[in-house]
Amino acid sequence: MSEVSYPAPVIILNTPQLAENIGAVARVMANFGLSDLRLVNPRDGWPLERAWASASGADWPLNAARVYDSVAAAIADLQLIYATTARPRELQLPVLTPRRAAGDLHAAAAAGQRVGLLFGGERAGLETQDIALCQAVVTIPIDPRFRSLNLAQAVAINAYEWRATAADRPPPNFREGPPPATGEALLGFYEHLERELETAGFFHPPEKTPNMIQNLRSALGRARFTDQEVRTLRGVVTALSRGRGKVLEKIARKGAPEGDG
Amino acid sequence: MSEVSYPAPVIILNTPQLAENIGAVARVMANFGLSDLRLVNPRDGWPLERAWASASGADWPLNAARVYDSVAAAIADLQLIYATTARPRELQLPVLTPRRAAGDLHAAAAAGQRVGLLFGGERAGLETQDIALCQAVVTIPIDPRFRSLNLAQAVAINAYEWRATAADRPPPNFREGPPPATGEALLGFYEHLERELETAGFFHPPEKTPNMIQNLRSALGRARFTDQEVRTLRGVVTALSRGRGKVLEKIARKGAPEGDG
Repeated sequence: MSEVSYPAPVIILNTPQLAENIGAVARVMANFGLSDLRLVNPRDGWPLERAWASASGADWPLNAARVYDSVAAAIADLQLIYATTARPRELQLPVLTPRRAAGDLHAAAAAGQRVGLLFGGERAGLETQDIALCQAVVTIPIDPRFRSLNLAQAVAINAYEWRATAADRPPPNFREGPPPATGEALLGFYEHLERELETAGFFHPPEKTPNMIQNLRSALGRARFTDQEVRTLRGVVTALSRGRGKVLEKIARKGAPEGDG
Repeated sequence: MSEVSYPAPVIILNTPQLAENIGAVARVMANFGLSDLRLVNPRDGWPLERAWASASGADWPLNAARVYDSVAAAIADLQLIYATTARPRELQLPVLTPRRAAGDLHAAAAAGQRVGLLFGGERAGLETQDIALCQAVVTIPIDPRFRSLNLAQAVAINAYEWRATAADRPPPNFREGPPPATGEALLGFYEHLERELETAGFFHPPEKTPNMIQNLRSALGRARFTDQEVRTLRGVVTALSRGRGKVLEKIARKGAPEGDG
C-alpha cells in the first residue's frame, strides 16, 4: 500500500456522546493513516480519560484533537466537506457512495485542498443545517431493513475507502485555476446574503426561515465558489440590497466591488 | 442498492473470545445483509446471553449460528473460502484486497457456489494450518505502523465490500463446467495424500511436518479442483503409494483408477 503525499481528510464528529466511541474513532483513524480529529460540542466535555483508554494506543489523534462550538467553526478552514449520513435528506446535494466520495476527496487533496468528513453524534446524527454546509452527502449502502452501524464503524468504512483508493491514484496533479473558498468564507457570504434577505422580508412565513436558509446554502454550496467568486457574490448582494448606483460608484472609484456588506 | 439473488458469504469466526464481539459481528452482518454465522470453538461456549445484548437487535444471525469444533468442519460444505488476516504468511496463496475478494465471492456465488470468509479470534488471529484450507488471503490495507482493527470492524469492511460490489454486478451467469469441490472433499484428499506421504517417510525432519503440510495444502488449494478432479487425484495418490503396477492392472481391468485409498 503506497502512501500519498497529501494530507488525509479531517474527521469531524458533531456532538459525540460517549468517550469510548471517540476513542474507537481515533483507533480506526490510526489504522487507515488518518490523524486530524475535530470534536464539535462533545457531550461530556473534553479531554475525557476513557477516550484514551478505548483507543488501544492510538493516542495521537486524541492528543491533537481540537474542540469547536459549531460545525461551521470546525470546518472553517476546509475546502471540501462531505457529510456522512444514512438518512435521506430534503437538500439538493449529491448523494455518493463512500467509494465515490474517496475518489473526490483524493482528487481535491491532491490539488492541495483541505478536505474533511463530517459525522453526526450517536443519537441524533446530523442536523440538516449542518449538512447544508457540506458539498455532498456520503451514504454507506447498508440494508434498509437494518440500519445500525455504530460511529466507529461508519468512520472505518470511509477511512478504509480513503486508503484503499490511495493505491489506485495517479500521482497528484495540480488543479487548474484557483481553489474553492474555505467554509469560513462561504459562511460569511451566506450570512451576509441571509441578513440582507431578512431585512428585505424575504423569509416568509417566519417559521419557514431555517428550511429556506438550508436550501439556499446547499444549493449555493454545490457551485464550489472560489474566494474571488465569493467576493464578487458579496458585491452582488451588496449591490442588490443597497442599491446598484452606490456600488457602481465605488467600482468606478476603486476598481472593484466592495468586499463586505 | 439492488439485492442479489444468491446467498451472501458465510462468516466463520475461529475461536472468538468475547460474547460482545460475536454480537457486534452479528450487528455488522445484519447491516450489510449477511446472516449465516458459524463459530469454531467459542472460548466461553455457546449460546452466550451477552452476544444478544450487544447485537442491537440483530438477533437472527445469532439465533441461527452453528458451532463447530474445527475450521475444517465449519467450511466442509463451502466451495470458496477466503481467510482474512493482516499478517503476511509464508503460504503461497493469493493476497487480495477486500474489494477484489468481494468481486471473486460474487462471481462464485452467482455461479451457485457456497462461499465464506474466515476470521481469526481477537487474540491469536488465524493459524497457518487453517489459512491453508482457504483459497486466498484477504488483507485490509491498514497502516503497517498501526495495525489494530477489531473483529467487528474487519467483518464490517468485508461485508461492506460485498454489498457495495453487488451494485456493480451484472446479472448472475452460470459457470461453465463443474463447480469446485467442497472443503470437505478437499480435506479428505489432503489427509489421504498426507497419510501416504507420512508412510513413505516424506516428512523429514519430523518437526517440519506441519509446515510442509500447510505448504502442500495451500498450493493444491489454489487449483480449485472439481469433485471429479479430487477423485482422480485420490486415485493418483493411491496409484503412487500402492505401486504403479497394481493400478495399471486395475485400469486395464475396470477402465478407471480406484476412487479411494
